Amino acid sequence: MVTYDPEQLLAQAKESNRVALAKLLSIVERGGPQARELVKLTWGQGGETYLVGITGAPGAGKSTLTDRLISQVRSRTLEVAVIAIDPTSPFSGGAILGDRVRMQEHATDSGVFIRSMATRGHLGGLALAVPDAVRVLSAVRFPYVFIETVGVGQVEVEVVGAADTIVVVMTPGWGDAVQANKAGLMEVADLFVINKSDRAGARETRRDLELMLEMSTFEGWVPPILETIATEGKGIQEVFEAIESHREYLESSGLGQKRREKRVLDELTRIVRAEVNRRVDQLISDPSFEAKKAEMMSGGIDPYSLASDLLEIDSA
Amino acid sequence: MVTYDPEQLLAQAKESNRVALAKLLSIVERGGPQARELVKLTWGQGGETYLVGITGAPGAGKSTLTDRLISQVRSRTLEVAVIAIDPTSPFSGGAILGDRVRMQEHATDSGVFIRSMATRGHLGGLALAVPDAVRVLSAVRFPYVFIETVGVGQVEVEVVGAADTIVVVMTPGWGDAVQANKAGLMEVADLFVINKSDRAGARETRRDLELMLEMSTFEGWVPPILETIATEGKGIQEVFEAIESHREYLESSGLGQKRREKRVLDELTRIVRAEVNRRVDQLISDPSFEAKKAEMMSGGIDPYSLASDLLEIDSA
Repeated sequence: MVTYDPEQLLAQAKESNRVALAKLLSIVERGGPQARELVKLTWGQGGETYLVGITGAPGAGKSTLTDRLISQVRSRTLEVAVIAIDPTSPFSGGAILGDRVRMQEHATDSGVFIRSMATRGHLGGLALAVPDAVRVLSAVRFPYVFIETVGVGQVEVEVVGAADTIVVVMTPGWGDAVQANKAGLMEVADLFVINKSDRAGARETRRDLELMLEMSTFEGWVPPILETIATEGKGIQEVFEAIESHREYLESSGLGQKRREKRVLDELTRIVRAEVNRRVDQLISDPSFEAKKAEMMSGGIDPYSLASDLLEIDSA
Repeated sequence: MVTYDPEQLLAQAKESNRVALAKLLSIVERGGPQARELVKLTWGQGGETYLVGITGAPGAGKSTLTDRLISQVRSRTLEVAVIAIDPTSPFSGGAILGDRVRMQEHATDSGVFIRSMATRGHLGGLALAVPDAVRVLSAVRFPYVFIETVGVGQVEVEVVGAADTIVVVMTPGWGDAVQANKAGLMEVADLFVINKSDRAGARETRRDLELMLEMSTFEGWVPPILETIATEGKGIQEVFEAIESHREYLESSGLGQKRREKRVLDELTRIVRAEVNRRVDQLISDPSFEAKKAEMMSGGIDPYSLASDLLEIDSA
C-alpha cells in the first residue's frame, strides 16, 4: 500500500527518494491538515538553501535562462530544485508543457528536481503554498532552489518576493519595463537580465532601466543590468556570478537575516488573513445572518455599519 | 469658505452642481470617515442607474469606444457619467492623459460627467472606492454610468465585475483573448467587442472567442461577439443595442436583481475583510507580540500554530 504519511515521506525524501519528495509537494499543493502537519515537521528544519526567484513577462525566455542556470549549479556539483509556477488558465497549457518538456534535458540528472505548481486547495493560494514547498526542499537539503513564474502579476510578485535573490528577465523593447514597473517588480528586483539581447531595442531597454534605477534610492546594493542570449548560453555565467555576489552582499550586510525575518512575518500575516477571511465568509453565509442581510439589501443599513456590527458581535 | 460637508455637497450635486459632485468623488477617493458618512447618506438613495463596465487590454481602444457610447446615450437625451480607472503607475500617465484629453470633446456638454479615479487612502482600494463613487452618481440620478478600466488584472475584474453589463474589448490577434481568459474576464463578460476589426486577425480572434464560448456553459444569455471600428464610429450603435438587450434580459429573467444582491454582499465581504486585515496588521506589529515572533523566528513555533494562537487570544 502507498503511504501518504507526511513524516514517513519526509524521512524517505531525505534519503533522496524523489517519488516521496514529489508526493510531499502534492500534499503541499492540496493544502489542508496534512499540509499543515508538514509545515510543523519542516519548520526550523531547513538547511542552507539559497532561493532564487526568476520572473518576467511571458516569452522573455525565463525557462531557457533557468535551464542554463541549472547547468551552472550542476557544474559546481551542487543539487538544485526548480519550482515552476503554472497559471491556472488551461489556455496557456501548451506553452508551459513545451517549457517543461525542454527542461527535461535535465530529467536524467538525479541532481535536478523540477516541479510545476498550481493553486489547488491550498488556503491562501500560491503565496502560501510556495513557501511551504520551499521548506520541504530545504529540509531535504537542496542548496539551491529556483522559483520560476510564468507572468508578471501581483501573485507572481508575492511568490517571487520571498526569494533571496530576485532576477527580473526582460526582452528588448519598452513594454516589459512598463509592465514590470506596474506589477511592482522594480522595487523588488535584485538584478535585471535583458535576454535576447541581440535583438533590436536592447540598448533602449537598458537606458529605460537605468533611468528607472536613477529615479529610485538604494541602500548598498544597486541592481546590475546583465545581458544574455539564453538560447546560446551567452552571458549565463555572469548572471550566476551576479547572483553569488548578491548572496555575499546579503550575508556581509546582515540584510539576508532581515529579509528572512520579514519573509516569515509576511507568511504569518498571510496565514492569519487567510484564516480570518475563511471565518468571515463562513459568518456572512450563515443563516443567522439572513435578517441583517435583508435589511441591507432593502437600503435600511449600509454595509459599513453592518460590517461594524458584525465585527463587534464577533469581536473579531 | 469652501464647504466639505458631505451632506451639503450631496444636496448641491443633486441640483446639478458639478463642482460639488467632483468634490464628493474626491472624498470617496480619499476614503476615511467622510467617505463612510457619504456611504451612509447615499445608501438606498440610488436611482435607476445602469452600470456598464468596459474593460480590455491597453491599446484595445476602450476610451474611443466609451467616447462613442457616450454619444449614443446623449442621442437619447440621457445624462451619462464615466469613471475612468487610472493605474497607480506614473509611467503610463502620458497615454491616459491623452485619452482624457480626447474625451474632452464632451467637456462642453453638461450632460456628460467624466472622472478619473485612482486608489489613494481608501481602505480596500478601488474595489471599494468605485462602488462608493457609483452610489454617489446614482444618488445624483445619472441614468447611465460607464466604468472604463485601463488594463486587465485582478483589480480591473473586481471593479468591472460589479457592473450590470460587462463589455470586454479586444483587438485582432490571439494575445488579448489569452490575457482576458487568464485574468478571469471570460467568465464575467456579457458581450465581446472586437475593435479595430478591419485589422488582420479579426476572423481568428472571433474564432478563438467562439471556441472559448463553446467550452463554457451559459444559462440563458450567451455573450454576443460584436465588431467595431471605434475611431470611425462603425458598429457602435450595435454595441449599444446589445447592451440594451442584455439589460432587458437581466430584467425579464430576474437575474438583474440577483446580481445586485450579490454585488452588495461582495461589497460587505470586502469591507469586513479590509477592516479585519487592518486589525490583524495592527495586532502583528504590536510590541506585546514580540516574544511570540522571536519564538517563531528561531524555529520554535511554526506560523500556522502561531496564527491559531493569535486568533484564539483575539477570538477574531
